[in-house]
Amino acid sequence: MKFKIKHRLDGTLARTGEIITPHGTIETPAFIVGGTKATVKALTPEQVEEVGGQAILANTYHLLLQPGPDIVYQAGGLAKFMHWDKPTFTDSGGFQVFSLGMAYKKGIDMVSHTTKGDASQAKASKTQLAKVTDKGVVFKSHLNGAMIEMTPENSMEIQHQIGADIHMAFDELAAPLADYDYLKQALERTHAWAVRCLNRHRELNQKHQANGETEQSLYAVVQGARHKELREASAKFLGAMDFDGFGIGGVFEPGEIPSVLQWTNSLLPDDKPRHLLGMGAQPLDLFLGIEFGIDTFDCVAPTRQARNGSIYTYEGRINIKNSVYKSDYSPIDKECTCYACLNYSKAYINHLFKADEILAATLSSIHNEYFVISTVDRIRHSIADGSYFELKNSFLERYYNNSDTDLHKLANL
Amino acid sequence: MKFKIKHRLDGTLARTGEIITPHGTIETPAFIVGGTKATVKALTPEQVEEVGGQAILANTYHLLLQPGPDIVYQAGGLAKFMHWDKPTFTDSGGFQVFSLGMAYKKGIDMVSHTTKGDASQAKASKTQLAKVTDKGVVFKSHLNGAMIEMTPENSMEIQHQIGADIHMAFDELAAPLADYDYLKQALERTHAWAVRCLNRHRELNQKHQANGETEQSLYAVVQGARHKELREASAKFLGAMDFDGFGIGGVFEPGEIPSVLQWTNSLLPDDKPRHLLGMGAQPLDLFLGIEFGIDTFDCVAPTRQARNGSIYTYEGRINIKNSVYKSDYSPIDKECTCYACLNYSKAYINHLFKADEILAATLSSIHNEYFVISTVDRIRHSIADGSYFELKNSFLERYYNNSDTDLHKLANL
Repeated sequence: MKFKIKHRLDGTLARTGEIITPHGTIETPAFIVGGTKATVKALTPEQVEEVGGQAILANTYHLLLQPGPDIVYQAGGLAKFMHWDKPTFTDSGGFQVFSLGMAYKKGIDMVSHTTKGDASQAKASKTQLAKVTDKGVVFKSHLNGAMIEMTPENSMEIQHQIGADIHMAFDELAAPLADYDYLKQALERTHAWAVRCLNRHRELNQKHQANGETEQSLYAVVQGARHKELREASAKFLGAMDFDGFGIGGVFEPGEIPSVLQWTNSLLPDDKPRHLLGMGAQPLDLFLGIEFGIDTFDCVAPTRQARNGSIYTYEGRINIKNSVYKSDYSPIDKECTCYACLNYSKAYINHLFKADEILAATLSSIHNEYFVISTVDRIRHSIADGSYFELKNSFLERYYNNSDTDLHKLANL
Repeated sequence: MKFKIKHRLDGTLARTGEIITPHGTIETPAFIVGGTKATVKALTPEQVEEVGGQAILANTYHLLLQPGPDIVYQAGGLAKFMHWDKPTFTDSGGFQVFSLGMAYKKGIDMVSHTTKGDASQAKASKTQLAKVTDKGVVFKSHLNGAMIEMTPENSMEIQHQIGADIHMAFDELAAPLADYDYLKQALERTHAWAVRCLNRHRELNQKHQANGETEQSLYAVVQGARHKELREASAKFLGAMDFDGFGIGGVFEPGEIPSVLQWTNSLLPDDKPRHLLGMGAQPLDLFLGIEFGIDTFDCVAPTRQARNGSIYTYEGRINIKNSVYKSDYSPIDKECTCYACLNYSKAYINHLFKADEILAATLSSIHNEYFVISTVDRIRHSIADGSYFELKNSFLERYYNNSDTDLHKLANL
């Protein structure tokens, strides 16, 4: 894997570039499409390509449980298994070991984007459903209740079997409201695990080389919650090691993006790519993330929200199931050039949702993915041609439409 | 609408031809794809086109309840509403008024393809959920319990609003095991309704003409259950009237296709197309239907069975969810050239079903529709080049693989 920087935006951490993988090049900043179980929900790979998707991120935890990494390996690896001849990522499974353990059926999003409610219960519930030791984590499968052990070493082995181009080191997700001492301890464990991940990863890459197979790449995952000292310590410790890039993990509010990323990205090696894990579907996340040095994002929200009828437009989000759209024969967004907007009316998509038809999920997912991906593409071009702040102000002003003054403050509008 | 016959098969009622509609030409025999609620389940119109679909049949009953015919009309008619720029059919809603009334949630197929069980209860249940008079039918919506009246006149009005190219007259579906006297009475009502349908249809077409709109076409529906006298009487009565074509309705077993169609089709006008309603997903149905004079079929079974993991192969049906396919990296059928078979393994599709992913339904539906449509296409070519019986014997021998001697007898193998 190689990373080249092409443009920078003065006075910010933003840059454009290219991540070159064995399965092709990703123009950055880029939105990586969520393909949790080796499929982007409700879309064919051709449809993902048509909405501008450059790469897909699948989930090690889910693929470990179903179909099992040996099946993906025997099928020729993730890309071939799912008929996606472009770059792929896997996350380490660490996030799901914790979030599905404690928040299963309540949605990962409730954990990753809130400071209230279930997330604060993480430590308590974790003791029931997952047990963390320095060796690794033992947890219950949410599918069949079987006890499964995941360690830095076997996370690497599983990811190498799945065979994505870019892997994530196995880390501990600490609850955002856990006390400082616990967070520090969890961070030290994450760092020790990163060392073990890198060692095992190198051994496995040597095996690939010996077998004439393609070598795979590994990102470390920077943690440290909302604490400046911890984030800085993590960026320094992991940044000094020979990882191919860095994931930014942990649970924090969109409003914390600027501070967390400033602490982290100003210390990480400038010449390696940075991935914001599981965040970045809302326009504000995207603009702030990129402005503060993020090269790639992943988030399942665009397809998940699409399946609930929650649709992005340049004027903000709408729920297409609302009865006002029953007889609205205009497209979701008149300015949008996605397949759904070019060929279907709101009335039709409203009907598909009311009739509980699968095509509702497909058309809505196409639109939402296109909206997010094309927004990141526009930001990338605006960095290259110097029009970034103009785009940011006009886009966010219109999207949030004075409806949320906090967001306005955040975005410095 | 025009119909041209191109080839005939000596000693049978089979023919090839063309149905020319305002939205394009259908090469017959043809399998018309089921699009009950103005969408082919789990497929985009482009995917329907890619599997060779020439036309789609939507359902008047379902569209009456959701979104309502006024919405479809305001959207520019069925084809434009659903982004399908090719021929469309609607059935009259008659079948669903009865079958959803008595068999809702048990599957229409249980009614239409069995002589046992629920179908025999039709008359009893019907009195609860639907009331038939000479004027029409009053029935309860299965969606919200509202009482709805459907008459020959308003069935025509609804179908003209929906605006498919080809409509079906409103008929009474009698239970297959109803007594002869009831069947005769139902048939007389169906004939009286056909006259009223045709009158109202002509008036509505005159309005279209006056408004510069496209005229629409109407098929009568021949009934008469399993009784030679009734089928012949129906074919003669309806065949003498000025319909554009004929649907063959009613509930009978695949084994009764030869006799029912022989009675009916040998008496219907030779120069008008004949559509076998709601039947024709199994290879035997297709071969026998065409051999006994059917020009078009429709059936939702290919997509419904696909969603259950029941997949057609040239060696018979398989259930892709079976664990033997978990590590089978070959395509569903090595000879098949559909999108699913060219790009995915059984192992992947098995995984998608186990993981409850929407793409499972899409890939399986693509394959099953392609299987049925391409089989009908092959039969059409075999009539043109004289190789029909050769194809029939080799195809059915292999598909049923000596597994069902009754089918062998039926197919004269």
